[in-house]
Amino acid sequence: MKVVVIGAAGTIGKAVVEQLGQRHDIITVGSSSGQHQADIADIAQVRRLFEQVGKVDAVVVAAGALRLVPFADITPEEFRVGVDSKLMGQVNVAMVAQHYLNDGGSITLTSGIIGERPLIRHASSAAAVNCALGGFVRGAAVDLQRGLRINLVSPTVLEESMPAYGPFFVGFEPVKASRVALAYARSVDGAETGQEYRVW
Amino acid sequence: MKVVVIGAAGTIGKAVVEQLGQRHDIITVGSSSGQHQADIADIAQVRRLFEQVGKVDAVVVAAGALRLVPFADITPEEFRVGVDSKLMGQVNVAMVAQHYLNDGGSITLTSGIIGERPLIRHASSAAAVNCALGGFVRGAAVDLQRGLRINLVSPTVLEESMPAYGPFFVGFEPVKASRVALAYARSVDGAETGQEYRVW
Ligand SMILES: NC(=O)c1ccc[n+]([C@@H]2O[C@H](COP(=O)([O-])OP(=O)(O)OC[C@H]3O[C@@H](n4cnc5c(N)ncnc54)[C@H](OP(=O)(O)O)[C@@H]3O)[C@@H](O)[C@H]2O)c1
Ligand SMILES: NC(=O)c1ccc[n+]([C@@H]2O[C@H](COP(=O)([O-])OP(=O)(O)OC[C@H]3O[C@@H](n4cnc5c(N)ncnc54)[C@H](OP(=O)(O)O)[C@@H]3O)[C@@H](O)[C@H]2O)c1
Repeated sequence: MKVVVIGAAGTIGKAVVEQLGQRHDIITVGSSSGQHQADIADIAQVRRLFEQVGKVDAVVVAAGALRLVPFADITPEEFRVGVDSKLMGQVNVAMVAQHYLNDGGSITLTSGIIGERPLIRHASSAAAVNCALGGFVRGAAVDLQRGLRINLVSPTVLEESMPAYGPFFVGFEPVKASRVALAYARSVDGAETGQEYRVW
Repeated sequence: MKVVVIGAAGTIGKAVVEQLGQRHDIITVGSSSGQHQADIADIAQVRRLFEQVGKVDAVVVAAGALRLVPFADITPEEFRVGVDSKLMGQVNVAMVAQHYLNDGGSITLTSGIIGERPLIRHASSAAAVNCALGGFVRGAAVDLQRGLRINLVSPTVLEESMPAYGPFFVGFEPVKASRVALAYARSVDGAETGQEYRVW
């Protein structure tokens, strides 16, 4: 299969490329890294990306920013970072990619444990975005044509990210990126649609 | 209690005003109706609203637009209607209202059954928005100070709305607005926070 991986240079993306690359041809994308460049928050760049790569069998997104800010202080602009980048960025990819996927092809997006109970602090925007992605994938799965599939991978915090995010995730059991990558493989190589693959 | 009801002239809002008005002083708000006008999608108008009404004990929002569009055709602009109006509109109200609520006061927002399994067609944006509100309320509840509470009412389709929305909700058991209004009463007069009150 020809598989586009957006965010391929990231902590999760690198492990996904390694896992899927064992069986598939990978096209790597980032906003400034990879074989192709596109900022997913800008749908015009997503359209240009798919005009360049053409027909594919699977699209994976492991990219999208979030802000963790106390709700008492959060500005609309800070709240919007996750909405514009992680939510609308991934929605943009799905909206465009459906028209470039071969029959039976798949879209796999990324949310995360924030939003699930029990919540962590400062997560009003992050939880909204991750839960929105769950609803989006369930809703889009019903509408997709030609046997196209869409799924969501929801990882807990990664071992590799504990130096950066550890203080937010005291008491969480981190998982290795290589284990998270298996969930993307189950989505891409599997048969289901509208599913959430939790890794925790 | 002094209770602000945004969307007070709507199908749900009218029933909420009737229910809460039995015990509380109600301030009605709409973008063009009610005692005060504010478009919740514009945070500047929300700030002006609360400068006018001052300290309150509870804020209820029963407003916010959504678009139901087949995923194959949906434009980013159509997808954004729900994100900007129903999601960010209600987030705007919560962000501002927290600073005007008396200790122990409450915010009650509105989502809806779309997003829950089984999904209806054409619901990718609506499901994203309703699920986002669930995550938002859970996340904000953890951060709110001074005993402030935030909850979500998630109604199924209303009997009063079946003439308009019936074709999307074949096989759903509609509920009366007066019954939906009880969930807002449980949130406003109750003790819990971070909860979703489902009415279906
Ligand atoms: N790491 C964790 O513990 C963890 C846990 C759960 C969920 N997640 C989620 O998983 C996703 C990836 O996380 P990560 O830790 O792997 O991130 P990361 O290490 O920061 O990597 C992100 C990758 O995405 C690309 N990227 C960033 N913004 C982009 C944009 N607007 N358009 C296109 N590409 C973009 C980056 O490349 P360029 O610099 O070239 O753009 C980079 O390759 C995020 O949504 C995150 O919330 C992460
Ligand atoms: N009706 C249902 O079956 C149902 C079921 C589940 C969930 N819901 C949700 O419940 C909410 C209310 O639904 P409804 O059927 O009661 O709506 P509705 O009858 O259309 O009433 C909406 C009310 O909100 C006000 N409003 C609309 N946009 C606004 C804005 N941007 N800023 C401030 N006020 C605004 C309107 O007054 P103005 O014209 O003056 O702005 C009106 O009073 C919606 O979010 C809807 O998705 C409805």
